Amino acid sequence: MAGNSFGKIYNLTTFGESHGEAIGGIIEGCPAGVSLDFDAIEAEMQRRKPGQSAIVTQRKEPDSVKFLSGIFEGKTTGTPIGFVIENTNQKSKDYSHIKDTYRPSHADYTYDKKYGVRDYRGGGRSSARETACRVVAGAIAKQILKDVKITAFVSAVGDLELKAHYSDLDFSEIEKNPVRTADAEMAKQMEDFIKVIRKQGDTIGGVITCVIQNVPIGLGEPVFDKLHAELGKAMLSINAVKGFEYGSGFAGTQLKGSEHNDIFNEDGSTKTNHSGGVQGGISNGEDIYFKVAFKPVATIMQKQQTITSEGDTTEMQGKGRHDPCVVPRAVPIVEAMSALVIADYWLLNRVSKI
Amino acid sequence: MAGNSFGKIYNLTTFGESHGEAIGGIIEGCPAGVSLDFDAIEAEMQRRKPGQSAIVTQRKEPDSVKFLSGIFEGKTTGTPIGFVIENTNQKSKDYSHIKDTYRPSHADYTYDKKYGVRDYRGGGRSSARETACRVVAGAIAKQILKDVKITAFVSAVGDLELKAHYSDLDFSEIEKNPVRTADAEMAKQMEDFIKVIRKQGDTIGGVITCVIQNVPIGLGEPVFDKLHAELGKAMLSINAVKGFEYGSGFAGTQLKGSEHNDIFNEDGSTKTNHSGGVQGGISNGEDIYFKVAFKPVATIMQKQQTITSEGDTTEMQGKGRHDPCVVPRAVPIVEAMSALVIADYWLLNRVSKI
Amino acid sequence: MAGNSFGKIYNLTTFGESHGEAIGGIIEGCPAGVSLDFDAIEAEMQRRKPGQSAIVTQRKEPDSVKFLSGIFEGKTTGTPIGFVIENTNQKSKDYSHIKDTYRPSHADYTYDKKYGVRDYRGGGRSSARETACRVVAGAIAKQILKDVKITAFVSAVGDLELKAHYSDLDFSEIEKNPVRTADAEMAKQMEDFIKVIRKQGDTIGGVITCVIQNVPIGLGEPVFDKLHAELGKAMLSINAVKGFEYGSGFAGTQLKGSEHNDIFNEDGSTKTNHSGGVQGGISNGEDIYFKVAFKPVATIMQKQQTITSEGDTTEMQGKGRHDPCVVPRAVPIVEAMSALVIADYWLLNRVSKI
Amino acid sequence: MAGNSFGKIYNLTTFGESHGEAIGGIIEGCPAGVSLDFDAIEAEMQRRKPGQSAIVTQRKEPDSVKFLSGIFEGKTTGTPIGFVIENTNQKSKDYSHIKDTYRPSHADYTYDKKYGVRDYRGGGRSSARETACRVVAGAIAKQILKDVKITAFVSAVGDLELKAHYSDLDFSEIEKNPVRTADAEMAKQMEDFIKVIRKQGDTIGGVITCVIQNVPIGLGEPVFDKLHAELGKAMLSINAVKGFEYGSGFAGTQLKGSEHNDIFNEDGSTKTNHSGGVQGGISNGEDIYFKVAFKPVATIMQKQQTITSEGDTTEMQGKGRHDPCVVPRAVPIVEAMSALVIADYWLLNRVSKI
Repeated sequence: MAGNSFGKIYNLTTFGESHGEAIGGIIEGCPAGVSLDFDAIEAEMQRRKPGQSAIVTQRKEPDSVKFLSGIFEGKTTGTPIGFVIENTNQKSKDYSHIKDTYRPSHADYTYDKKYGVRDYRGGGRSSARETACRVVAGAIAKQILKDVKITAFVSAVGDLELKAHYSDLDFSEIEKNPVRTADAEMAKQMEDFIKVIRKQGDTIGGVITCVIQNVPIGLGEPVFDKLHAELGKAMLSINAVKGFEYGSGFAGTQLKGSEHNDIFNEDGSTKTNHSGGVQGGISNGEDIYFKVAFKPVATIMQKQQTITSEGDTTEMQGKGRHDPCVVPRAVPIVEAMSALVIADYWLLNRVSKI
Repeated sequence: MAGNSFGKIYNLTTFGESHGEAIGGIIEGCPAGVSLDFDAIEAEMQRRKPGQSAIVTQRKEPDSVKFLSGIFEGKTTGTPIGFVIENTNQKSKDYSHIKDTYRPSHADYTYDKKYGVRDYRGGGRSSARETACRVVAGAIAKQILKDVKITAFVSAVGDLELKAHYSDLDFSEIEKNPVRTADAEMAKQMEDFIKVIRKQGDTIGGVITCVIQNVPIGLGEPVFDKLHAELGKAMLSINAVKGFEYGSGFAGTQLKGSEHNDIFNEDGSTKTNHSGGVQGGISNGEDIYFKVAFKPVATIMQKQQTITSEGDTTEMQGKGRHDPCVVPRAVPIVEAMSALVIADYWLLNRVSKI
Repeated sequence: MAGNSFGKIYNLTTFGESHGEAIGGIIEGCPAGVSLDFDAIEAEMQRRKPGQSAIVTQRKEPDSVKFLSGIFEGKTTGTPIGFVIENTNQKSKDYSHIKDTYRPSHADYTYDKKYGVRDYRGGGRSSARETACRVVAGAIAKQILKDVKITAFVSAVGDLELKAHYSDLDFSEIEKNPVRTADAEMAKQMEDFIKVIRKQGDTIGGVITCVIQNVPIGLGEPVFDKLHAELGKAMLSINAVKGFEYGSGFAGTQLKGSEHNDIFNEDGSTKTNHSGGVQGGISNGEDIYFKVAFKPVATIMQKQQTITSEGDTTEMQGKGRHDPCVVPRAVPIVEAMSALVIADYWLLNRVSKI
Repeated sequence: MAGNSFGKIYNLTTFGESHGEAIGGIIEGCPAGVSLDFDAIEAEMQRRKPGQSAIVTQRKEPDSVKFLSGIFEGKTTGTPIGFVIENTNQKSKDYSHIKDTYRPSHADYTYDKKYGVRDYRGGGRSSARETACRVVAGAIAKQILKDVKITAFVSAVGDLELKAHYSDLDFSEIEKNPVRTADAEMAKQMEDFIKVIRKQGDTIGGVITCVIQNVPIGLGEPVFDKLHAELGKAMLSINAVKGFEYGSGFAGTQLKGSEHNDIFNEDGSTKTNHSGGVQGGISNGEDIYFKVAFKPVATIMQKQQTITSEGDTTEMQGKGRHDPCVVPRAVPIVEAMSALVIADYWLLNRVSKI
């Protein structure tokens, strides 16, 4: 109820603050008998971790996951998978500059008002560090979904936008560049732009596109738990996300029905895919694709006016090592949340028929 | 689990197909002691019902709600509020043209694949008629939220777009025109455009903007159940919705942090509101505003190629009376879903502190 | 959250007060493709309804269920099954004697304190009339569980107790006598005893035993949602229930481990069944059996001292037609709740392995 | 859904096997602002831990809890409280005797059938070691419930039964004897009896009585989530529990309504308390009291016939250090589960009225 849990059958509950001893989680409802590839899990963690390239935060966090239960002789046992990720960075920091100060467009103010207390060391619970736990659970979900292919990539950084349809892009490019975009030339431009932004002590927003292929037909629960509604919630729950659109999205509002309708082929596939792989909230076997909008990171290396918890005006400036642009590191998070939703709905669909 | 239920504390479960005897629902978790204004509930139903103006479907459905429980001497008792809305239209229709045919971009195909059976009379469970139940529950939620003001309006029909910031619009215009847009001049243009589209036997998409004012500070559960994530899911669960953005939305991805950050006033309010009234998933007391993208209605009065359930190619054309543009009637649904989320999170926030 | 919903996958939500216009419910998560036998549902309703014999309440309530959705051409469609049962008795009554008076050992006082308002017409929401909805959902659950055999019977009325082990009883006797006990001779004694009690204007408690046979191995979720824990909750949620024991129950506390342990046969079955068909919270294929204790009905036809809502002492006496002993009519309710649990856990078990 | 989570608002999810690296859990929904007394938590852990007296298992497990999140400067922050308890005993053991053998009346067989894999090191997930996590969450729940007094004690060991009404017992005796019974003389008899049983290599069952005092009026959700139904489920979820009765319980079935009804005093309290502090599923302010039946521990130090996973007959004998009688160490677990339910329903009751 308090918002730290996600999924109906395949369920992740996370805990932990950015500067506590550890973060971690429990995966409940992972079916028994999944042979785990721990290297693959580790590889996903590496894609998310700080310090991986010149254009992300230079913090050093090994972000190694330790599994405590639910796995025996390399296989899931059907019992809950408990895991922890130690915080190695939590001790040395000095937080005096934010202890009594609300950082603009952070959650300091709202947490304080909601709870009456606030763990002022870094973002506390509101830190994006929590998403490391999602990557763990998502990496296992991917291993449940052997045939499903989930590919996310950066499709915009500021106004640098990858305009081609995803089917015209080369997905093998994505992991070759630090921006994680699907075009080598654009990657260079985006990288340069992010470096300029960083030099300004500023940050910039961006967009991630995600494509989910080979999804079985029939996933999605009608009415309130439509497949795209759950994907939308999953994405909007990621820090800094401001928007979600799938299939034709906002652009589709300008089309006529005669243009937008996806005409069937005889095998039930469709000639076009404005629907984005979901009709009536249920997957139809076509590619599911969607875009996720990320705002610029709120912590900037420039002086900003703000207020203290006493309501006095003050000035502050970001310290430490922060991401000038969040989207390169958010790519594996988008994929992880996608995997959580698809694995969950895939299991849930086992009870749709007698 | 099967997707017919919405809300954690204030919870609506709905049932019913478009052409069964009745649709209805149960509101669980409505607090005791709410004095109900039944006329206000009825008024919301009238805003959604078919046949209300020349630019919506001309079907005649009285859409009167009958409450069966949970209310005593005009007040809620804390027990579940059961209600039904009779389907008056369900008998006379001839469905032979869709019985064995999958309508393009409808849910016929996916329901059939998921469940192995399909109620082929109209949209069945996938019909937007289900949203009448949401309007009932939303109307009661609005009465719980005495001080909160929820205003939705049509901000685009096709490429006719209301570009002004919502604070520069006159909300009192909205219910004066059949399009439910917040500008008299634009209303005329949109109305004319919809009429042209209808004459073509076609349909057109649109956008609804919603503004929620006077929201208490502190609503929203961090991490997975952020307030905007739940609003996003609520909106994406409405039939025909393809996208959701709040605050700065997709446009915000092109801003720098120094431009996007909302600087505090001394009272904790902010000078700008790119955040859209939510920081870290929790309401900050500023206006919550968001946009919802609706695709064009799939049923068009033109011949389209499609397939039968046997996989044979055939041709079909919409019959009966359908909406050429769904957004005018979707305005009260967007408001209702907003009210459900805000009422639910308002109750949930009662347990955040000892 | 407010307690009107039962079940994880196969889920029943009920609404309705004893003297409102109707009671009813929504069954969510019933798999598609179940061919319904409506006569069998009706027959279960008849087993529960008032006025069926000389030893139960003589109220006349037809208790016919009307299905509104989720069923098409005799089969479930996977969408929610909405249903209503009209209250035919609700108009004529005079409640002035209980309007401001708290009946002893009823829920009048606690409802009033909890909610601040109370529907004083009969028991309102606390009336056992609500269990008619459980019988509807249980009757459908039984049809999902084709091979499972659920048999409940009265094993005690007051101190008249059926002492034989259930395997020595003739279950075919149960529906032949109005008490619903599994022994013709005892049936006569119990019936006579209940008549004496009624003549005294008094009521008497009793015990129901339930045996569930042919349960698949593997049902039950470890730790908090053990199969017997859910059965226990299901039974304790029935009006007037004061206790639940399964397998060896309270008597088993006096045994030694060497006496109590169930030794395996080579096929995995056990030589004894002190476990009651459940080991570690999971069904092992042996018969599940348990006992449910019912207190005497609180409404008696004798003068009792009580208080008004103002805290003044007063006297009252039950009016109308009430059950002198609740267990004969509770037999189908115990079976229904058993069916709800087993159907739910059977569906849930589909996701235990990859 | 997979049964490792308990509670609606104040929610505990646990993980861990008896012989993995650690067990632990996440408490979600603990309100912010609770000042924690860590010594009190530790004291509860000591009451449950092995090796505490001569009549319980002599295993050495320090059972120290380490909190990882959700607490800042000694106070809860409203964010999830993650914790781990290391397993110090997990390495040295030899499990070859149970690896392929199903222990009678344990969960080996049912886990293997349900999941297809089994962690054969000790009880794995089915071990009562898991209850240490419940004691942690219960100890915090007790600190939320400042005014509520929860007292459990052993009321029977085998056929040695404490027959006095709880109000005639001296609760201050309970922690003075290793059996945790509320009578010094009976304590001696029970202790001696357990020692005899242990010398026989056998085990014995028992009963725990629990009394909850000063419960606010109004806790409990009608219909399916009655307060006593949730307490019953909570107790039945504890390892080895076979039965639950509250108030008059099974004995109450032999009473007449005129004897059983609790007559009101003018202040709303009742002259008798057969109801056990709950009427219609809602607390009425009187003492809540109930009994919990525990079967004898299944592991005995005697040779027993059993089968292998291949279905061959074999013989086995318990090894290591096990409890001859589980009830002395189960007392804090019964209290912990009581505290979880009461805290949860106390929070839930905040939303019952507008």
